[in-house]
Amino acid sequence: MYNKKFMELALASAKKVKIDIPVCALIVKNGEIISVKTNEKEKTNIVTSHAEILALNEANKKLKSWRLNDCDIYVTLEPCPMCGWAILSSRIKNLYFGSYDTVYGAFSNGFNFGKILNSKINVKGGIMEEECNKLLNDYFMGLRNENKA
Amino acid sequence: MYNKKFMELALASAKKVKIDIPVCALIVKNGEIISVKTNEKEKTNIVTSHAEILALNEANKKLKSWRLNDCDIYVTLEPCPMCGWAILSSRIKNLYFGSYDTVYGAFSNGFNFGKILNSKINVKGGIMEEECNKLLNDYFMGLRNENKA
Repeated sequence: MYNKKFMELALASAKKVKIDIPVCALIVKNGEIISVKTNEKEKTNIVTSHAEILALNEANKKLKSWRLNDCDIYVTLEPCPMCGWAILSSRIKNLYFGSYDTVYGAFSNGFNFGKILNSKINVKGGIMEEECNKLLNDYFMGLRNENKA
Repeated sequence: MYNKKFMELALASAKKVKIDIPVCALIVKNGEIISVKTNEKEKTNIVTSHAEILALNEANKKLKSWRLNDCDIYVTLEPCPMCGWAILSSRIKNLYFGSYDTVYGAFSNGFNFGKILNSKINVKGGIMEEECNKLLNDYFMGLRNENKA
């Protein structure tokens, strides 16, 4: 079962993102936060610097293991296939996300990463969905207004 | 059109890999090598440290841009979905790979990443396939013998 507190914390971090699409990923083990990272692709000019990849790297370093079997990940937006596959590979137990990504989402839509091969991950989307959607909608609305101006 | 020389160089680097599954990724721009990286997942204990991800990171840093439109990537093994999506996201022009991955390959099998959405990537697999297959087969054979002993 997820703990809403962790999604609230992820959302609070995502709200502080500048330039990039505001997304935060937070990894928890035994109720303790192991890593919190936000999307930094534009800021760092590194294409793989999505919040989830950075959070996994940090968790791997802290635990000195690429296996995160007893960890949960909270993400404010459904992971893309790059991040989705990284999460599966890390053997994370539970993936909890906020907004659904109806175009690039790895777990809904056509990809269905949660149902393939021998994956045992438990996936739940739509947590604090309204708040997560609002953050993204405000961001994209801001971009559109900038482009108009 | 691919240049066989680059796959030969990638294969030579892959052959030097210790511990990890021997895979190398090499990124080329205008005939010049921008980055060469090998799989380091086990060595570094970081789940995302596949050759392609590390090569993309390095290329992004060198070119100070996440966009690699004018680059080609050579990989000794077909990329997994994590790396495949990272390659698509980077807008790399050509992906050339050696061995097919009949289980996790992002471009053959069920995933078909080269054919989705508005991807414009050109993909060609099976380059120096026999040599690339041999390297992987020898590696897995070695693992099996170790497990028996």
